[in-house]
Amino acid sequence: MVELEPPLLDAVFHALGDPTRRRMLRALADGGVRTVGQLAEPFAISLAAASKHIKALESAGLIRREVRGRTHLCRLEPGPLATADQWLRFYERFWTDRLDALDRLLREDDARQAAASPPTPPTPKTRKGDKP
Amino acid sequence: MVELEPPLLDAVFHALGDPTRRRMLRALADGGVRTVGQLAEPFAISLAAASKHIKALESAGLIRREVRGRTHLCRLEPGPLATADQWLRFYERFWTDRLDALDRLLREDDARQAAASPPTPPTPKTRKGDKP
Repeated sequence: MVELEPPLLDAVFHALGDPTRRRMLRALADGGVRTVGQLAEPFAISLAAASKHIKALESAGLIRREVRGRTHLCRLEPGPLATADQWLRFYERFWTDRLDALDRLLREDDARQAAASPPTPPTPKTRKGDKP
Repeated sequence: MVELEPPLLDAVFHALGDPTRRRMLRALADGGVRTVGQLAEPFAISLAAASKHIKALESAGLIRREVRGRTHLCRLEPGPLATADQWLRFYERFWTDRLDALDRLLREDDARQAAASPPTPPTPKTRKGDKP
């Protein structure tokens, strides 16, 4: 039950648990670099509230901020997203198993139905009218 | 900037932002089914605190609880982890690009060094003293 960098994972998952912060990351993914004002713009929130969200993203290492005079430029930092993804992928076999089990059940159900019904002539794939 | 099921993602990422809850999920992944008491056991927390964590996991759809008399049995529900993973994988190209760029820089650096230094005989892989 050893975990890689749990404090980072805490901050990353916490940061991702808010729709405003997820949309800010998406804006950075779509647009490259954004000022704090540009990141805040699509939301009906104050600059102070936006700044708090940006700080949460920053302390999770999800964005990097470059200060140029009075302008703060933000960039996406994808590394911690890769760490979070790595954590999630441990569970991939569980959701894959679930889909495999569903697939198996459907096949078994098909087979049962085929065995229960009397043999019928194979259904033609094309109707007579389709042929010239 | 459309997101699939944002309220679910809020709850899932929030639930994952805590190391106790992540370890509970891991225990369910390793052990299949656990009672609330068994899930609480490895942590120095009260049953009430453990129950609160379990409720957070439950409301994110990450575990399913089956009540048998006075025993509550918990199981992992992998579906919402798959949804979170799907959200993260949108950003995969960013962390892959970053690694590719690093790889390119290292190769360019190698090529520059090779061009700058005069041709030398290949370095022997073993030292003379290594040979019997």
